[in-house]
Amino acid sequence: MIEVLVIHGPNINLLGVREPDIYGHDSFDELNRKIKERGKQLEIETRIIQSNSEGELIDAIHGTLTWGDAIIINPGAYTHYSYAIRDAIAAVRKPSIEVHLTNVHGRDEWRRHSVVAPVVSGQIIGFGTESYLIALQAAKTLIEESHR
Amino acid sequence: MIEVLVIHGPNINLLGVREPDIYGHDSFDELNRKIKERGKQLEIETRIIQSNSEGELIDAIHGTLTWGDAIIINPGAYTHYSYAIRDAIAAVRKPSIEVHLTNVHGRDEWRRHSVVAPVVSGQIIGFGTESYLIALQAAKTLIEESHR
Amino acid sequence: MIEVLVIHGPNINLLGVREPDIYGHDSFDELNRKIKERGKQLEIETRIIQSNSEGELIDAIHGTLTWGDAIIINPGAYTHYSYAIRDAIAAVRKPSIEVHLTNVHGRDEWRRHSVVAPVVSGQIIGFGTESYLIALQAAKTLIEESHR
Amino acid sequence: MIEVLVIHGPNINLLGVREPDIYGHDSFDELNRKIKERGKQLEIETRIIQSNSEGELIDAIHGTLTWGDAIIINPGAYTHYSYAIRDAIAAVRKPSIEVHLTNVHGRDEWRRHSVVAPVVSGQIIGFGTESYLIALQAAKTLIEESHR
Amino acid sequence: MIEVLVIHGPNINLLGVREPDIYGHDSFDELNRKIKERGKQLEIETRIIQSNSEGELIDAIHGTLTWGDAIIINPGAYTHYSYAIRDAIAAVRKPSIEVHLTNVHGRDEWRRHSVVAPVVSGQIIGFGTESYLIALQAAKTLIEESHR
Amino acid sequence: MIEVLVIHGPNINLLGVREPDIYGHDSFDELNRKIKERGKQLEIETRIIQSNSEGELIDAIHGTLTWGDAIIINPGAYTHYSYAIRDAIAAVRKPSIEVHLTNVHGRDEWRRHSVVAPVVSGQIIGFGTESYLIALQAAKTLIEESHR
Amino acid sequence: MIEVLVIHGPNINLLGVREPDIYGHDSFDELNRKIKERGKQLEIETRIIQSNSEGELIDAIHGTLTWGDAIIINPGAYTHYSYAIRDAIAAVRKPSIEVHLTNVHGRDEWRRHSVVAPVVSGQIIGFGTESYLIALQAAKTLIEESHR
Amino acid sequence: MIEVLVIHGPNINLLGVREPDIYGHDSFDELNRKIKERGKQLEIETRIIQSNSEGELIDAIHGTLTWGDAIIINPGAYTHYSYAIRDAIAAVRKPSIEVHLTNVHGRDEWRRHSVVAPVVSGQIIGFGTESYLIALQAAKTLIEESHR
Amino acid sequence: MIEVLVIHGPNINLLGVREPDIYGHDSFDELNRKIKERGKQLEIETRIIQSNSEGELIDAIHGTLTWGDAIIINPGAYTHYSYAIRDAIAAVRKPSIEVHLTNVHGRDEWRRHSVVAPVVSGQIIGFGTESYLIALQAAKTLIEESHR
Amino acid sequence: MIEVLVIHGPNINLLGVREPDIYGHDSFDELNRKIKERGKQLEIETRIIQSNSEGELIDAIHGTLTWGDAIIINPGAYTHYSYAIRDAIAAVRKPSIEVHLTNVHGRDEWRRHSVVAPVVSGQIIGFGTESYLIALQAAKTLIEESHR
Amino acid sequence: MIEVLVIHGPNINLLGVREPDIYGHDSFDELNRKIKERGKQLEIETRIIQSNSEGELIDAIHGTLTWGDAIIINPGAYTHYSYAIRDAIAAVRKPSIEVHLTNVHGRDEWRRHSVVAPVVSGQIIGFGTESYLIALQAAKTLIEESHR
Amino acid sequence: MIEVLVIHGPNINLLGVREPDIYGHDSFDELNRKIKERGKQLEIETRIIQSNSEGELIDAIHGTLTWGDAIIINPGAYTHYSYAIRDAIAAVRKPSIEVHLTNVHGRDEWRRHSVVAPVVSGQIIGFGTESYLIALQAAKTLIEESHR
Repeated sequence: MIEVLVIHGPNINLLGVREPDIYGHDSFDELNRKIKERGKQLEIETRIIQSNSEGELIDAIHGTLTWGDAIIINPGAYTHYSYAIRDAIAAVRKPSIEVHLTNVHGRDEWRRHSVVAPVVSGQIIGFGTESYLIALQAAKTLIEESHR
Repeated sequence: MIEVLVIHGPNINLLGVREPDIYGHDSFDELNRKIKERGKQLEIETRIIQSNSEGELIDAIHGTLTWGDAIIINPGAYTHYSYAIRDAIAAVRKPSIEVHLTNVHGRDEWRRHSVVAPVVSGQIIGFGTESYLIALQAAKTLIEESHR
Repeated sequence: MIEVLVIHGPNINLLGVREPDIYGHDSFDELNRKIKERGKQLEIETRIIQSNSEGELIDAIHGTLTWGDAIIINPGAYTHYSYAIRDAIAAVRKPSIEVHLTNVHGRDEWRRHSVVAPVVSGQIIGFGTESYLIALQAAKTLIEESHR
Repeated sequence: MIEVLVIHGPNINLLGVREPDIYGHDSFDELNRKIKERGKQLEIETRIIQSNSEGELIDAIHGTLTWGDAIIINPGAYTHYSYAIRDAIAAVRKPSIEVHLTNVHGRDEWRRHSVVAPVVSGQIIGFGTESYLIALQAAKTLIEESHR
Repeated sequence: MIEVLVIHGPNINLLGVREPDIYGHDSFDELNRKIKERGKQLEIETRIIQSNSEGELIDAIHGTLTWGDAIIINPGAYTHYSYAIRDAIAAVRKPSIEVHLTNVHGRDEWRRHSVVAPVVSGQIIGFGTESYLIALQAAKTLIEESHR
Repeated sequence: MIEVLVIHGPNINLLGVREPDIYGHDSFDELNRKIKERGKQLEIETRIIQSNSEGELIDAIHGTLTWGDAIIINPGAYTHYSYAIRDAIAAVRKPSIEVHLTNVHGRDEWRRHSVVAPVVSGQIIGFGTESYLIALQAAKTLIEESHR
Repeated sequence: MIEVLVIHGPNINLLGVREPDIYGHDSFDELNRKIKERGKQLEIETRIIQSNSEGELIDAIHGTLTWGDAIIINPGAYTHYSYAIRDAIAAVRKPSIEVHLTNVHGRDEWRRHSVVAPVVSGQIIGFGTESYLIALQAAKTLIEESHR
Repeated sequence: MIEVLVIHGPNINLLGVREPDIYGHDSFDELNRKIKERGKQLEIETRIIQSNSEGELIDAIHGTLTWGDAIIINPGAYTHYSYAIRDAIAAVRKPSIEVHLTNVHGRDEWRRHSVVAPVVSGQIIGFGTESYLIALQAAKTLIEESHR
Repeated sequence: MIEVLVIHGPNINLLGVREPDIYGHDSFDELNRKIKERGKQLEIETRIIQSNSEGELIDAIHGTLTWGDAIIINPGAYTHYSYAIRDAIAAVRKPSIEVHLTNVHGRDEWRRHSVVAPVVSGQIIGFGTESYLIALQAAKTLIEESHR
Repeated sequence: MIEVLVIHGPNINLLGVREPDIYGHDSFDELNRKIKERGKQLEIETRIIQSNSEGELIDAIHGTLTWGDAIIINPGAYTHYSYAIRDAIAAVRKPSIEVHLTNVHGRDEWRRHSVVAPVVSGQIIGFGTESYLIALQAAKTLIEESHR
Repeated sequence: MIEVLVIHGPNINLLGVREPDIYGHDSFDELNRKIKERGKQLEIETRIIQSNSEGELIDAIHGTLTWGDAIIINPGAYTHYSYAIRDAIAAVRKPSIEVHLTNVHGRDEWRRHSVVAPVVSGQIIGFGTESYLIALQAAKTLIEESHR
Repeated sequence: MIEVLVIHGPNINLLGVREPDIYGHDSFDELNRKIKERGKQLEIETRIIQSNSEGELIDAIHGTLTWGDAIIINPGAYTHYSYAIRDAIAAVRKPSIEVHLTNVHGRDEWRRHSVVAPVVSGQIIGFGTESYLIALQAAKTLIEESHR
């Protein structure tokens, strides 16, 4: 069975609490329930972690050396400056997908630049909680391609 | 039945001919066949146009005022400087998805900036021809949401 | 009788349809009717063209070598990057006026820079459809001065 | 009767003396005579002030809280750095028009940026002394619109 | 009774040890004692935390969802690049005050830019350990205002 | 008795008139009354001046060579470009506090940069008219410290 | 026989009419006659096209997939921003030479940057109509080399 | 007899008081006495003015249209942003010399840029009060040359 | 005996696993064994820590206040943005050496800038695992010098 | 007979030795032999010099005041920063051609900017050793034109 | 007797030959004769050297360790990039004056920046050959001051 | 026996004379004596050259094609702009080490950028004269590795 690690970056645990006009009314638990459910439908085993600490996110990425065929990551605000997370993703060499709930390009200028983008396989941006679900489908495609 | 207009920008007609190491070996016709097929599966009526002319692409976008519930657009190199295409997308106010075959963030610096991005609903980047197919699914979700 | 060519750039054909809060509720046809009418009052023969294509706008500017004593042009989004339109205006050496419906300086940063501005005779910015009508009066003054 | 305050910024008092190849041969008195005359034709009462002092220009703008339906202002070189004049214009909330004698975009790079532009209603640039006269007409239109 | 969370960022635990010419001779414990004391005088219950870890600081900010009417934060060097801390402050929507011991504007260029500043309620900068004490008074005012 | 000069820069005389959503509904006279009152409570003799003229503000700062133990200054828009005011503050070498009514960092980009900041003793930003009152307390602390 | 496609970009059709002090007095027809003639001397079959439309220029470049061993292109003002033309040249993988009539480096700053330059084989700049004729010789050398 | 206007900009009246380590111990009166004396030796009639107001400095420059064969100006901090003073100097077209007491290039970065420099005849920088005295000699040379 | 703390930043624990073409084939354990060994030869007691967390690295640096005569640190990707680590190194005032396995100047542009560099004593860059061993020798020299 | 000075800048003496994948396998002597031969065919007398010293290259350019109707120069790396060589070329006012062996625009960013380009007559870039031979033909044309 | 070394940088040997409209009609020999003569009047022994080589200019500056109380240097185009000449001037610690024949601020942008300026004592700019003669007087003043 | 060429760039011959607070009190001869001595200990034959001329430094680097297994170079101020020295180092393809006496990152901004760094094997920065001695050891390691 395919293994996918879903990583939520800083502040995403506040989903539903934090600026619902921007991020939507789904709670964080609701999002994770949907990810699990869609995973089952696609025959993907999912593990989900959230941390506000840059170091713990890097540790989690390293963890895919022993568990995980692909990474789905929403690096939150670290997207814009964490070269350490970028190095971690590049180091483990797994198919990886950067997701964002909102269209980051339509907001503050500094949210338009991702230092992580050059090392991921692809990006899904702007479809709310659906972004994660679409990413599960895309992850499956990437893994199957890499097995050919 | 849902109507989706798929717009291919400049040079995409050379798919399969142009730098296959970067853009893949699928031909342009093959890509369009897949889009049609996936559309049918999702109960989406698709129309596809390709043009190397910025003006014709704008005309096509305007066309959705009379036909089309959503737009899937790969603006090719116009992504990086066509404020006119951006204005057109903003003007027609339809759900719209920007797609790219390759991870544009992992290539030349100038390919990392999209002037179109702030006005689209979302982006699907880096999954080869699969990018378009994922976008069809995402378009359906966007349309259904806007109907609620 | 004085001849003035009025050139509308990309997306201006959607006037009244496109973001009416910004661009006003007058339709494109209504605007053109007003231009014709004011032209007659000022004893100016007007011709009006609109195109979304950069190439066709350049062709139109070239056309003033055989018809047209002055140019009134709203280059739309091409204002901000079309060095080719700039070169065309400089090449035909006619009195020329750049007009904008809205105060472009009060909106997005990128709308504040005009590559066309250095080669036109003058600018009328921010008076809605009235911008064009004021420009007709200004064009008349410019032509009369150049005949002295 | 409509009241319009015309404000001349620094060095404009030298009109006719200062670089006539650029600014024209009309003297400063001649310009003001024309403004008064055109004002009468349009049934506008005009007051004209000139100062080289940023503080006095701000005082004049504040003055429109008690006299003046609209402002026509040529901020001279202050155009390019006086955020204090900008704040004053924004504070009094009157229709306001920025005018320049010459096409500032066709000269030094630093003359191309106006810090005042984002807060005025519109701009008339590049028609010599005629710029002021056209502005009177435009001011009338703005006032009439705001009364509707 | 009013609840205020005081957050010390990285390296502030070295106060008194670290470059005393710049940061003063008060020790870290002395500072916290003063905060507690002034809090009592103003009838404010204070809690104080210090961490060198960006993630723990974010966790602390999140904590005000259950305890804390306002935040006083000295983000130390994170001031200049932690968009994640900025997002956390914005997410919890509490009155918040950024404090600095020294005049950060009179030192290195990079210390002049705060990414946190746009989302806090106000700033108190440059009064040594007194900065925190003034902030307690200001926090009280902010909370009382928000209750009106 | 301690002497403190309070200096209001350009447009602050319009307080209550100017954009009350941003600057609050207190009038300029009300603000000054509060400053006088709080001064008395703290045993500080206050003098207050306001000018729209950069030169007069500099003259006032020079005046502290004969009267004034400290300066509280809100330089208004001059904050962002008046190196002459900066030089004046540095020249008189008095404890000085820069105040702003609103959080300047949460507004336009250009309002985020203060050329005055590197030479003042400290800053109090974003607490409305309370900013001035907190500054009086801070000024007292600075003067007492400098006497030790 | 060797086949070379010569592509003239926007405004070059006005040669002889447009600013002759800069671009020379040869007419556009005269230039094309010289190209044909020199082509014959070098045993090169030449085809010449001119268009003001970016899209048509791209179409022409694509055409070399069926006719043309090499491309000589003067992209006019598109030189400075048409990433779409750049992509087209890269896609067809033919020997290609960028030519300019004038020394673009000795004029406006923006004329100094070519987005096309990194993908052409070489450049011939600044020799008037002779630039094209020299380019024919260079094209022949490039083709012969690529056949070795 | 030759007439030279010597203009001191903002804060220079504090000479001897202000940061004597940087600006020297000569008082402002002493400097002016030296200028008068050296003027007499060189058969130059000197007039000296000082103002902290940008507007008054411009008025003084305009004054040379009726008195003054040359200008010696130390614009103080206005050096770095007063385009209005620059325009005034350019407008009166007199030989003009920019002087500075200290080597402005060896201090803060922003002191290295002079917006006035492009329109003066020459500069004398870094020789303390001697800068003015050398400038008197240089002014004489410039006037004599312009009379040839 | 001399005490040296060796600090490995984020992702360095993956040495041997991560991009061996760039970072070499030595494993992380092998590197640490070599450091221990060389330390013994030089009569240096070494302690080695690795963490992916910025906060833990800062804590480790603080730890040298009680153990450690010098610091050898490879800050990994934090090199390029962690002003907090920089402040920590500056705060403890120990001889410190920044090391990098690879020549960071020959790779991505962003890897060329170190925010840590201005506060360390020296740098050893580009000699693979040998960088650490050379640094041990250099640390010894620095400590001996500081004891003189 | 026409005289042309051919100047080789730094490191070009290593041709054939230095990175042959980029610069080709022709040796430096072979290149010079070809230049001499082509010169003879075109009835041009050629002199060739090479130096790694900026000063000697300037001396050589000055030498054309007594010998040389035109200059062909490959300034090597000095292309990108030697304003002194630029001034020398401008000073002697001879027809001059900048040549490069490789397409400098397709390599490192810093190789794309030539400080010499604005003062030469034209450029031949990217045709290997053929660049020099084409330049001889172009030089002849330039000289003949200047004699008309 | 006072010793002053006068150093002419690259291309200054062409004075009178090179662009006389900009640099004047005095020949290089005439300039040196005037320097010698004025030197004698001021009881200064002068030595003059000119070189186009950066290395030789540095050698000359080093020479003042054994001969020369002050340096007058016109670094020509090296002014704008030779950090090596800057280091040499700083190293010998002699009073030094940077001179330029023309007002470098009124010409190309790149001529406005001097890397040498921060380390010289003062600058004399824009008085033609007189710049050197004024500098001799200034050098004398500097030397006399340093002897006090 | 291993051959290492040690190259000293401009102004390094003044060691001990030049700013000893920054560069240390060792004389240049003393430094070279130490290099020779350490060389002998390591069984390295050393040759040492110093020049202030960029051209001579390039000549020396070229010399390693016939003598020298590795290069140790302190390019002095040329570090920051000599692309010609960079090209020379890249051309000869020898192991090469850039050394600096002082921590260049802790000084002026412009000293932080090295154009040479991307082409050397490694860097040793900030250990005074010890930098060269450490580099000898590092050079030996590099040579031995390249022989494996």
